[in-house]
Amino acid sequence: MDFRTEFKPLSVQPQEIEEISFKMITEELGPHDYSDEQFKVVQRVIHASADFELGRSLRFHPDAIQAGIQAIRSGRPVIADVQMVQSGISKPRIEKFGGDVRVYISDPDVMQEAKRLNTTRAIISIRKAAREADGAIYAIGNAPTALLELIRMVKDGEARPGLIVGVPVGFVSAEESKDELLKLDIPFITNIGRKGGSPVAVATVNAISLLAEQMG
Amino acid sequence: MDFRTEFKPLSVQPQEIEEISFKMITEELGPHDYSDEQFKVVQRVIHASADFELGRSLRFHPDAIQAGIQAIRSGRPVIADVQMVQSGISKPRIEKFGGDVRVYISDPDVMQEAKRLNTTRAIISIRKAAREADGAIYAIGNAPTALLELIRMVKDGEARPGLIVGVPVGFVSAEESKDELLKLDIPFITNIGRKGGSPVAVATVNAISLLAEQMG
Repeated sequence: MDFRTEFKPLSVQPQEIEEISFKMITEELGPHDYSDEQFKVVQRVIHASADFELGRSLRFHPDAIQAGIQAIRSGRPVIADVQMVQSGISKPRIEKFGGDVRVYISDPDVMQEAKRLNTTRAIISIRKAAREADGAIYAIGNAPTALLELIRMVKDGEARPGLIVGVPVGFVSAEESKDELLKLDIPFITNIGRKGGSPVAVATVNAISLLAEQMG
Repeated sequence: MDFRTEFKPLSVQPQEIEEISFKMITEELGPHDYSDEQFKVVQRVIHASADFELGRSLRFHPDAIQAGIQAIRSGRPVIADVQMVQSGISKPRIEKFGGDVRVYISDPDVMQEAKRLNTTRAIISIRKAAREADGAIYAIGNAPTALLELIRMVKDGEARPGLIVGVPVGFVSAEESKDELLKLDIPFITNIGRKGGSPVAVATVNAISLLAEQMG
């Protein structure tokens, strides 16, 4: 079916566009092994990227979706690695349960500490988040160093995330950081390969907050 | 050459990561028909997406780069279609020349007018931008309706953009809106197909503002 000829773009509202798109994605993706709830994430990631390869590269810890729903419904914060991720995440569904969406990377104390230790702001911002936000959802779309530091802190017992959404994009360390995440036995959502990015992190968190809302 | 084994991620600074990545991208992309300046955009888009197919899908009006540099150096604003694009664009290089990065989509008057006319906020925000920001760079990464409205306004003599960066992602109208943009004889940067998105719009504007700065 060719959806493109059916709708005059100027009269279609965003909500309708999303519904039509999701139908197209489901048809075009074909058979897959994702659970119904995992597929809500996959579908939204493909919607945000128009990239089926990226959608198929997503991997879920078996407890990931439930842990994410739980974190949102108990008002835990969402920690974004960069401002773009913070901007894209839909706030009302998270705030409804008492949570918020935070980004620490441009905080003055984070910038100072990174300079002092000659390391990345991404790393220091994760350390700050771990101190302040037990049980949070971490949404990392850009900084592999942030994800690697979070993994280290989990292993060393210094961080207790509710869910790690670890989907950094890039050519240096991104793929490797996600391979490390795949080895953890705590709730995570990640993907195989170099692709990823802010829209993937955003789409994932938004899909989960929708699931959290629909449970209510 | 395997760059991955050469660097310990935790000791690499973001600036170095970018340089290493750009070198990898140049090697892996191989031969292409882009000019040196266009390639700066292509390289940064691939860096932001890890997607060579997306990089190769970019298309440039012959005057696009110069028009973009000119717009930034003469302090014209950058209009982002959504907050994520606004967040991602590097501000200091634009502000140095007197410009700024604006997003109108959540302005109360835009929301009211969209409701009144039963149309999208994206469309109304473009109308507002055209009134307030002659010669601006439009960075459209998400809303095909915004791009289609801008194209209509250009044709009807209602908008005079300095440069249109039109790279909306999606399944409904995105590809078609970009096909329409390709037919205009005014400065544009776009891409073929359904892919695109906020990081593509951001990477494109950031590459151009770097070129603008380096000319100085």
